[in-house]
Amino acid sequence: MRYNPKNPYWFNRDRFVLSAGHGCMLQYALLHLAGYDSVQEEDLKSFRQWGSKTPGHPENFETPGVEVTTGPLGQGIANAVGLALAEKHLAARYNKPDSEIVDHYTYVILGDGCQMEGISNEVCSLAGHWGLGKLIAFYDDNHISIDGDTEIAFTESVDKRFEGLGWHVIWVKNGNTGYDEIRAAIKEAKAVTDKPTLIKVTTTIGFGSPNKANSYSVHGSALGAKEVDATRKNLGWPFEPFHVPEDVKKHWSRHVPKGSALEAEWNAKFAEYEKKYKEEAAELKSIANGELPVGWEKALPTYTPESPADATRNLSQQCLNALAKVLPGFLGGSADLASSNMTLLKMFGDFQKDTPEERNVRFGVREHGMGAICNGIALHSPGLIPYCATFFVFTDYMRAAIRISALSEAGVIYVMTHDSIGLGEDGPTHQPIEHIASFRAMPNILMLRPADGNETAGAYKVAVLNRKRPSILALSRQKLKQLPGTSIEGVEKGGYIISDNSSGIDRFGASAPAGKIYKEFGLTAEAVIAAAKELS
Amino acid sequence: MRYNPKNPYWFNRDRFVLSAGHGCMLQYALLHLAGYDSVQEEDLKSFRQWGSKTPGHPENFETPGVEVTTGPLGQGIANAVGLALAEKHLAARYNKPDSEIVDHYTYVILGDGCQMEGISNEVCSLAGHWGLGKLIAFYDDNHISIDGDTEIAFTESVDKRFEGLGWHVIWVKNGNTGYDEIRAAIKEAKAVTDKPTLIKVTTTIGFGSPNKANSYSVHGSALGAKEVDATRKNLGWPFEPFHVPEDVKKHWSRHVPKGSALEAEWNAKFAEYEKKYKEEAAELKSIANGELPVGWEKALPTYTPESPADATRNLSQQCLNALAKVLPGFLGGSADLASSNMTLLKMFGDFQKDTPEERNVRFGVREHGMGAICNGIALHSPGLIPYCATFFVFTDYMRAAIRISALSEAGVIYVMTHDSIGLGEDGPTHQPIEHIASFRAMPNILMLRPADGNETAGAYKVAVLNRKRPSILALSRQKLKQLPGTSIEGVEKGGYIISDNSSGIDRFGASAPAGKIYKEFGLTAEAVIAAAKELS
Repeated sequence: MRYNPKNPYWFNRDRFVLSAGHGCMLQYALLHLAGYDSVQEEDLKSFRQWGSKTPGHPENFETPGVEVTTGPLGQGIANAVGLALAEKHLAARYNKPDSEIVDHYTYVILGDGCQMEGISNEVCSLAGHWGLGKLIAFYDDNHISIDGDTEIAFTESVDKRFEGLGWHVIWVKNGNTGYDEIRAAIKEAKAVTDKPTLIKVTTTIGFGSPNKANSYSVHGSALGAKEVDATRKNLGWPFEPFHVPEDVKKHWSRHVPKGSALEAEWNAKFAEYEKKYKEEAAELKSIANGELPVGWEKALPTYTPESPADATRNLSQQCLNALAKVLPGFLGGSADLASSNMTLLKMFGDFQKDTPEERNVRFGVREHGMGAICNGIALHSPGLIPYCATFFVFTDYMRAAIRISALSEAGVIYVMTHDSIGLGEDGPTHQPIEHIASFRAMPNILMLRPADGNETAGAYKVAVLNRKRPSILALSRQKLKQLPGTSIEGVEKGGYIISDNSSGIDRFGASAPAGKIYKEFGLTAEAVIAAAKELS
Repeated sequence: MRYNPKNPYWFNRDRFVLSAGHGCMLQYALLHLAGYDSVQEEDLKSFRQWGSKTPGHPENFETPGVEVTTGPLGQGIANAVGLALAEKHLAARYNKPDSEIVDHYTYVILGDGCQMEGISNEVCSLAGHWGLGKLIAFYDDNHISIDGDTEIAFTESVDKRFEGLGWHVIWVKNGNTGYDEIRAAIKEAKAVTDKPTLIKVTTTIGFGSPNKANSYSVHGSALGAKEVDATRKNLGWPFEPFHVPEDVKKHWSRHVPKGSALEAEWNAKFAEYEKKYKEEAAELKSIANGELPVGWEKALPTYTPESPADATRNLSQQCLNALAKVLPGFLGGSADLASSNMTLLKMFGDFQKDTPEERNVRFGVREHGMGAICNGIALHSPGLIPYCATFFVFTDYMRAAIRISALSEAGVIYVMTHDSIGLGEDGPTHQPIEHIASFRAMPNILMLRPADGNETAGAYKVAVLNRKRPSILALSRQKLKQLPGTSIEGVEKGGYIISDNSSGIDRFGASAPAGKIYKEFGLTAEAVIAAAKELS
């Protein structure tokens, strides 16, 4: 059986994430050996070349079988936390005492660079808090980063920090050849069900290379023909480049019938489940295939000019609550500003260690981690629609994650309130000025700034429909009038005329004394004042 | 004696940083009591109001005595690490066995929100690595953030994490009234000279308020008149609002003569130092007052069209090395990409725990922390000119710190290499597309993209001269030709004509068959090809 994300069985696959470029060639090689059609021998040969399926950093939209886009450091471990959250949440909602249809692990490999990035500490603190027992992280402790030995900038005790974060920590001292140790560590990690596990695997970078092992020169550049030869000799590997010996092929091909048997087993289990739990099965299928329920958009509220003026952050909350009722994969939360961003789903409790079936996610003050976790949730299953929230100005804290949403086609909804100077007393550090312009410049982002209730509802309709583009909604703290002429349909067009002001100049001027012309065209102080008064 | 940053004595003052809005009113009240002219009783009364010196988050450019702008969470602790780095560096360079003229502490208060932010883990890992023994951080452990009890999102062991980061950790269990415990903790912290200290102070938020203490409702909003009354009664405080009783005034005013004595003592010590170590004293004074050495700009390299083509990242390294020779306060480094960003100063070693006199700072893969640490360095003394480097695309990781540079007038130089698709194999996650446009939209930023050697030198001249505006230099990985007509002076103008292409259309068209017009105006395929060939 070959990988096919449209086949419901694959929804329950274990997820493997290689954080940053970490072992990118390894990832491609494993996909190839495991029988993924997406990576052929030719693809391996065109590593890092134009048009290849094997770019320098794995991209989920380029290479089937690559789960997430993890190029920038720290994103991968954060995505993995999102994937593990999604599993825990869906398992809690859909598993039945007689049928565990959601039950998979999330594995991630991360290196020293990822460990140094603040985002990794944010998300690992959350993973410990949430008790994500099916998250297993391998920390490739090789002591080398691009600038050399980690002694120059990274001498903390990672073990102790992770124990502080509430993780189970295992140390594999010989990561180069200690296969039994590694197997035992995985077994131990699986036995610990209430905590995520960090397996610190001490390794030698460039293991086997006689002259370049344990040095930064193998970090981001090729060994070179001469050193490759020396390494082959050293490791006793006599085969041609890219040749996979028959016994290796045979070893790996065992997985194909094994996988087929597992698939048949799961399909039978799911067929049984579908009979007993019709509604849940239909919901779960829609989460697995991304099909939105018929008529979902009718749940969105509409307004008339007579509806009371309101802040778009409040109108947004009405939309969020309306959507959560009709979209089974809708979940999210705020970075410690839920009561300011107005993002609580009133009919649900908090997603927590012991209540993972709930849909309000409490991210704490961790904007960057929040965005990247949402990328992981969105890419777990196409029907999961995560939203996350903070003040609009703090998109600066999470911009790298937002860019990955755009690049990796993760339809995260960013609910960004307290737009502009309307924020008030918190002052200039909290007031977004340049942020709209900066996001309009970012490819594949929907930057939406609704003017009232209908436009807020329209913005949500656009955001939910665009499952391969993230949306940013800039929302106000202050009250805004409900305008005549706004509509959901109008917002969907991208631009539309709310009020016809076409009596501004639309001809090529006229010949007369200047004062007279200004007056004739209505450009007088009195006219400007009158127009301004009309608006206020 | 009153605070006067132009008086050299104040260069050696202890630095106090209140991270985020943390205790902002406390900070203003302390400045007022300590006799800072900048905060009068009237200023306290106009807290969070238009035009006041007491905005909702303290801003260094609004209120003399406020060291740094720390509104967004996590920035303050990062700034404090920069301030402590600056002290350790300057002490190592300028202190003599017979005269310790640089010798001060950096204190910072941070709360649960700052602890959750990834940036704080980044900088605290570095502070531990660098052994910043004169950095003392008070962690206000009050268990309340905006969304409520920290139980909902923050249950890690902060103590254990900080021990892992190489800090000395002390727990003050009664932070509300345990003054002796706090005094003892500070004494203990000062005795530990090879590690920074975290004093975890367990407190009750809103202590004294009978109905609102220990709840999120005192986090960001006023108690209200009724509860203020109840709190006054509860604490036995009978005085009018804003009234400072005589005995309190007297207690605080003790510091004025004490400070004068300390100042006289330091001035005498410095006068002695100046006699013995003339050159060092002159350098240190220029660091304290920000005066650039006469003729420093002559050190910048210049090029002719015959000079070899080169990547602007390499040309930048020539400038960095030239400037480090003539600017005593010039120091910086990269986030683990020194050999790619080309930022090493060849005549200096690494700033490390045991070699703090050196000027190459190794930030590790911690872009956000790096930017905020540089803000702290820049705001320690006007003559310190920090630069920091990563790939241009990773400004996304540090954008919040860059914005604070711009807002708080910290003239940090951001050396951002691997501009645009010219980066190559690392792929789209590493290629900046929208970044120039996004920074052009940010107020008070100098966004510079030099085209060759002369323009790179010009960009550095502009960056060094602008001590109250941060500069971002976007630099290439690929070789660029040295162009005729470029110059340092040209760059200083902001825009200038390198090559006169004014034979493009500069009239209102003409009447003739269209093909003929295109030909006459030189817009033919042949002409375009010829022009393109000339450029390539």
